[in-house]
Amino acid sequence: MTYSYVSHLYCPKCEETYSTKEKQQLCKCGSPLLVAYKMDELKSNFTKEDLLKRTPDLWRYHELLPVEDQENKVTLGEGMTPMLHMKNSGKEMDIPNLYMKDEGLIPSGSFKSRGAAVGVSKAKEVGVKELAMPTNGNAGAAWSLYCAQAEITSTIVMPLDAPEITRKECVAAGADLYLVNGLIGDAGKIVGQAVKDYNLFDASTLKEPYRIEGKKTMGLEIAEQFNWEVPDVILYPTGGGVGLIGIYKALRELQELGWIPEGKMPRLVAVQSEGCAPIVKAWEEGKTSAEPWENAETVAFGINVAKALGDFLILDAIRETDGCAIAVNDMKILDEVASVAKADGAFVCPEGAAAFAAAKELRVQNWIKDGEKVVVLNTGAGIKYPNTVEVDAPILQKDEKIVKQATTSK
Amino acid sequence: MTYSYVSHLYCPKCEETYSTKEKQQLCKCGSPLLVAYKMDELKSNFTKEDLLKRTPDLWRYHELLPVEDQENKVTLGEGMTPMLHMKNSGKEMDIPNLYMKDEGLIPSGSFKSRGAAVGVSKAKEVGVKELAMPTNGNAGAAWSLYCAQAEITSTIVMPLDAPEITRKECVAAGADLYLVNGLIGDAGKIVGQAVKDYNLFDASTLKEPYRIEGKKTMGLEIAEQFNWEVPDVILYPTGGGVGLIGIYKALRELQELGWIPEGKMPRLVAVQSEGCAPIVKAWEEGKTSAEPWENAETVAFGINVAKALGDFLILDAIRETDGCAIAVNDMKILDEVASVAKADGAFVCPEGAAAFAAAKELRVQNWIKDGEKVVVLNTGAGIKYPNTVEVDAPILQKDEKIVKQATTSK
Repeated sequence: MTYSYVSHLYCPKCEETYSTKEKQQLCKCGSPLLVAYKMDELKSNFTKEDLLKRTPDLWRYHELLPVEDQENKVTLGEGMTPMLHMKNSGKEMDIPNLYMKDEGLIPSGSFKSRGAAVGVSKAKEVGVKELAMPTNGNAGAAWSLYCAQAEITSTIVMPLDAPEITRKECVAAGADLYLVNGLIGDAGKIVGQAVKDYNLFDASTLKEPYRIEGKKTMGLEIAEQFNWEVPDVILYPTGGGVGLIGIYKALRELQELGWIPEGKMPRLVAVQSEGCAPIVKAWEEGKTSAEPWENAETVAFGINVAKALGDFLILDAIRETDGCAIAVNDMKILDEVASVAKADGAFVCPEGAAAFAAAKELRVQNWIKDGEKVVVLNTGAGIKYPNTVEVDAPILQKDEKIVKQATTSK
Repeated sequence: MTYSYVSHLYCPKCEETYSTKEKQQLCKCGSPLLVAYKMDELKSNFTKEDLLKRTPDLWRYHELLPVEDQENKVTLGEGMTPMLHMKNSGKEMDIPNLYMKDEGLIPSGSFKSRGAAVGVSKAKEVGVKELAMPTNGNAGAAWSLYCAQAEITSTIVMPLDAPEITRKECVAAGADLYLVNGLIGDAGKIVGQAVKDYNLFDASTLKEPYRIEGKKTMGLEIAEQFNWEVPDVILYPTGGGVGLIGIYKALRELQELGWIPEGKMPRLVAVQSEGCAPIVKAWEEGKTSAEPWENAETVAFGINVAKALGDFLILDAIRETDGCAIAVNDMKILDEVASVAKADGAFVCPEGAAAFAAAKELRVQNWIKDGEKVVVLNTGAGIKYPNTVEVDAPILQKDEKIVKQATTSK
């Protein structure tokens, strides 16, 4: 049985092709590379029914993933995260068919584990021994952990302001961790230099071609979880945008396989913070690529990306699906963390909260129509972001008792 | 179609029975109550094949759960957590068939969500509007969140030393949170008083009968994940012990259904910390119940329970399965957090690490035999316990570069 139907790598800009048997980074023209599969063979050999008895993780789609020898699979059980009907939040927002795909229920509590699982597995397959990457925290944590299992040495550089727990994950995994007094772009420059100085594999966002294949599985799962009928709208908190590009790629591949109808694509929405909204600006100005954002800052640290290497792919995916790009401010993001927890009991990350806030706004604008099926990607667990919640609880001594104010009992 | 085959509640001490249609707490004799099912009906109406097309969460076993009307289901997508082959750790420990069931991949990052999902759903079903509970942190966080979705008011009391993130979860969910300068037993006394003063439902461990049914699903999943062939040994970090009691109950029910063979039970191991080991002491002394542990203290806060209400059930489950009880010290627990992360890339909680340390010790003693299949329960995500890892990373300025020491590159 063929484990992977991977064919080759191709450049979406200049159409050059590359082999998947060797280490690859960017195209010589500077563009990220994408993975192509033998779709005709797949079409005759792979059916929806094949999935029924497989374990609920992203490797259930191995035919559509680039890892060729199962032995190279590095896994912590990632994937097939819940698709939750957010009844109470949906009622408040007048979106009765509001769903959340909860990427908090994944190793290291962040959807970055999808890209890490597939990226590290393929790195192992092509013989990478040492890699480096800049990160806003969660990707570095995930890659460190998967690299530990794969016995690949990792060098991670993250901003000082990145979520503190992600440092701990890197160190626990034995990564070589550096903090930088700057943003992810500054971390990227330091990594670029280290890659040259120490001959490391560069695992920066989209500088290796396989992370996107891991992220793609979110799109495959959304389709499978809705029984191969895609929703109307998908909202995705967008920093580097790999997930959005991946979901788009997944849906196109499913159309090619004939597993979902050709006619209908979900409208993809890139959600950013008003403190860092380069994609939204480019979208509003009708451009095909984005300018770097000055003085980027937002509480939703994962989407604090001033310049995305895949900006042109993000803008293309939005345009092709009749989607849009929208920014929300930090106050609305923090409000949404609290209100989703109180309404539906889900403690989401600020990036996920941004996507909920955007859904609310797009419904008010009637961009989201009455009765449409809407999926919000919550890209990580709220527990990785303790600073989004203030605690002011009474402290009792052992012999004290609770005295409830009339106002505290709801 | 019958959603639940629940029959009634019974007392494992005095055999009194109670209805599942009304709110119930302890038996009038003071013992916890257990749930009985209509096993004969189930046997003819429920097959393994029924599970194939169901979503990968604990509600796939709804026939064996106490919630009778599907409408009362309160869910965040909990259950069917990964069963991971820990190849590298297993090699180091000389347990090649070492598996981890990773309960970090669950809402709120703790296995407490299983008990909360089923407990809160059933509370909703019988008309509970306000409940209270003492907690070492994670259970309170989980119950707060599920209660939010169910629109049940929750009053949570936890020790000041409980993991700080769990306070945040309670507050985010809108719970009425109190901190106590003491241990969970002190929190329990305060809750007991509040239950009387304010007429609250008491959701303390085993004082309501349904949490255990949620925890039971770990046992059902272990059996299903090994294709209905049970492993040789299951190690469980034991505080209140509900999970261990639940796993035992699940396996007995599966035997009754004929889904697993009658002859073979996994040997159940209760793992405690040397700083709080009442069950281990009772086990070593051949007793059927445990004395309260004085000055309980351990880094594995979730198992810092000086007196478990279900001690007699824990000891019974160990005895009936030819299992054992074992304590490990805090230094070994912290070492194991680091070594599991470095070997297999899994960042486990200290309670889970205790179970790994116990497996290692039991293999050295040859209590775990050559080639046996061993399952360790990692009861929560390491990211909830940032204090288990020390970070000492270099801080770079934007224009600096990485200077690797010969010794830092592995």
